[in-house]
Amino acid sequence: MAEFSTTTVELGDRSYPIVIGSTLLGGHFELTDYVDGPDCLIVSNEKVAPHYLDALRENLGDRQIRQLVLADGEAYKTLQSAATVIDALVDARANRDTTVLALGGGVVGDIAGFAAACYMRGVNFIQVPTTLLAQVDSSVGGKTGVNHAQGKNLIGAFHQPRLVLIDTDTLRTLPERELKAGLAEVIKHGVIADAEYFAWLERNLDGLLQGEPDLLANAIRRSCEIKAAVVAADEREHGRRVLLNFGHTFGHAIENSLGYGEWLHGEAVAAGMVMAAAVSQLPPTEQQRLRDLLARAGLPVEPPGVGAERLAAAMRLDKKVKAKEVRLVLLKRLGEAYLTSDYPAATLRQVLAAADAA
Amino acid sequence: MAEFSTTTVELGDRSYPIVIGSTLLGGHFELTDYVDGPDCLIVSNEKVAPHYLDALRENLGDRQIRQLVLADGEAYKTLQSAATVIDALVDARANRDTTVLALGGGVVGDIAGFAAACYMRGVNFIQVPTTLLAQVDSSVGGKTGVNHAQGKNLIGAFHQPRLVLIDTDTLRTLPERELKAGLAEVIKHGVIADAEYFAWLERNLDGLLQGEPDLLANAIRRSCEIKAAVVAADEREHGRRVLLNFGHTFGHAIENSLGYGEWLHGEAVAAGMVMAAAVSQLPPTEQQRLRDLLARAGLPVEPPGVGAERLAAAMRLDKKVKAKEVRLVLLKRLGEAYLTSDYPAATLRQVLAAADAA
Repeated sequence: MAEFSTTTVELGDRSYPIVIGSTLLGGHFELTDYVDGPDCLIVSNEKVAPHYLDALRENLGDRQIRQLVLADGEAYKTLQSAATVIDALVDARANRDTTVLALGGGVVGDIAGFAAACYMRGVNFIQVPTTLLAQVDSSVGGKTGVNHAQGKNLIGAFHQPRLVLIDTDTLRTLPERELKAGLAEVIKHGVIADAEYFAWLERNLDGLLQGEPDLLANAIRRSCEIKAAVVAADEREHGRRVLLNFGHTFGHAIENSLGYGEWLHGEAVAAGMVMAAAVSQLPPTEQQRLRDLLARAGLPVEPPGVGAERLAAAMRLDKKVKAKEVRLVLLKRLGEAYLTSDYPAATLRQVLAAADAA
Repeated sequence: MAEFSTTTVELGDRSYPIVIGSTLLGGHFELTDYVDGPDCLIVSNEKVAPHYLDALRENLGDRQIRQLVLADGEAYKTLQSAATVIDALVDARANRDTTVLALGGGVVGDIAGFAAACYMRGVNFIQVPTTLLAQVDSSVGGKTGVNHAQGKNLIGAFHQPRLVLIDTDTLRTLPERELKAGLAEVIKHGVIADAEYFAWLERNLDGLLQGEPDLLANAIRRSCEIKAAVVAADEREHGRRVLLNFGHTFGHAIENSLGYGEWLHGEAVAAGMVMAAAVSQLPPTEQQRLRDLLARAGLPVEPPGVGAERLAAAMRLDKKVKAKEVRLVLLKRLGEAYLTSDYPAATLRQVLAAADAA
């Protein structure tokens, strides 16, 4: 048997394991334990399916398997794509005991998860994330959804998976740019919750960039532990879960202003974290440590030149806005984040001004 | 102050009141207690809005109010309509603290509730049902959703309202055909859960049909009590909530086969209940009591001539199907229902044969 580690997301009778290891899709994990009904639908995309779809099918025993291969990219994370998944379930005459499996990155997981949440008001759902970003972030915690033309993830549902299956071997085929984008969320976990983890990332970034399997498995495990603990404490984001949004108010505004898919999500979050750290008025040395680590990972540390006004407008549609006030996740120090609507307006303006075309 | 009664749906910290009375929209209820944020969206339809939209607006104090008036009818209960509601929320720059109010019948409530469930993964939602069917059934319990071309309510979410506000005065403008369709669900509550209530309905049907306010208020209250108790015991329909589906497997198949909107939902359920009672092999005298009461209410007691095969095919897409077996809610006696996949196939064939064109 292959070795794997398990982290549990503790949510009472909806608790579920995150299983992390290598060769899991090679048959070293009993996937059918999590597929009760007679049939299932695998949702993947055109990039990932050629690599792993057959392997996943072979793990599903005698189940009737349908598959749906979507176009690749954030631009397809639409209500229309979710409707296509639902159409496939209807065509299959799928019932409440069907299982939807998402094989791919965050876009595939978000679309398939939202369709699974809505079909017959919720069917069984399994995440098989194949990008670093999906493995450490979007596949864990039950947030599903699609974008609206005017804002990211504006349409969605909380729908927890029954299992998150992370085969680290899938990272071998991940394009370098996407590996780097995933590291943005890994670094975020250190920044908001664990200064020691941040320091470990500073020491081990080169090995992570080179794809060393043990280092990647360690990072995935620690990031999943941090995310699982936050989700267990606050499933529906009434409290501290919002801290996982560090860098995202800026990041989402960047993605929205550029058009989805121009920058990868992790790239936008990287620039957004630098902006949020500046608004946090962190000591210059700490701001510099964050900027350096992100830059070493090949990630952007400045917003694109979309204009400050446009960024500010996009930020007002952020889900954290309350009573029309933009609230931000800021840092007390590296390793500790908090939510506030009390920040210096002048500093924010200055930070946004970096988005004015040079 | 006007008199009103309150029935609570007990769901822990998501418990909510069903408030039933007259002149509630006339300002005799403090609606703003249930609208926390600065803005709200009223969703209604072209039939209901001219009667009650202004009155509802006047109950909302200083809130910023947007309104969206949909076309009337089950044919518009589509994902596209839900997307239109979401578009209106985006256009209003609505945030997580917004409130969606549904003013109308079951179609308006289901669409608006689903949009409220999906917008930013769930915002505050208030039901103001104006049809008898919505007042006794669809507005209570948190089931929201839209139809798929191939099946009713295949796309949806559980999203509990924070308040159900039933102003019985709204029934004065309800077309007679819709009042009768609402009585089908009222009768269903007696049939599945309370034989004494069924007998009360037999005694008082004429007055209900004549729209006597006290009788209607009594029936609404008793039906809401029955529904609230079932929902409190089984919010997500893992158990006895399914009993509320009595007559609905047949009824949905009728609606689907005829095309949505041909028959009203309550009409299809009426014919479906007679069919389900026959498959239940209830004593002929009890079957006759049910048939007589529905007929007195002007409701159909036979399926339309859409063909037995077509009805059977539509039934296989029912949400209660498990391991590809059609399960039915049947009766032990008037006042007691149960779910089973063990029923005489020959009797079912015979019952469906009534749908073969004469």
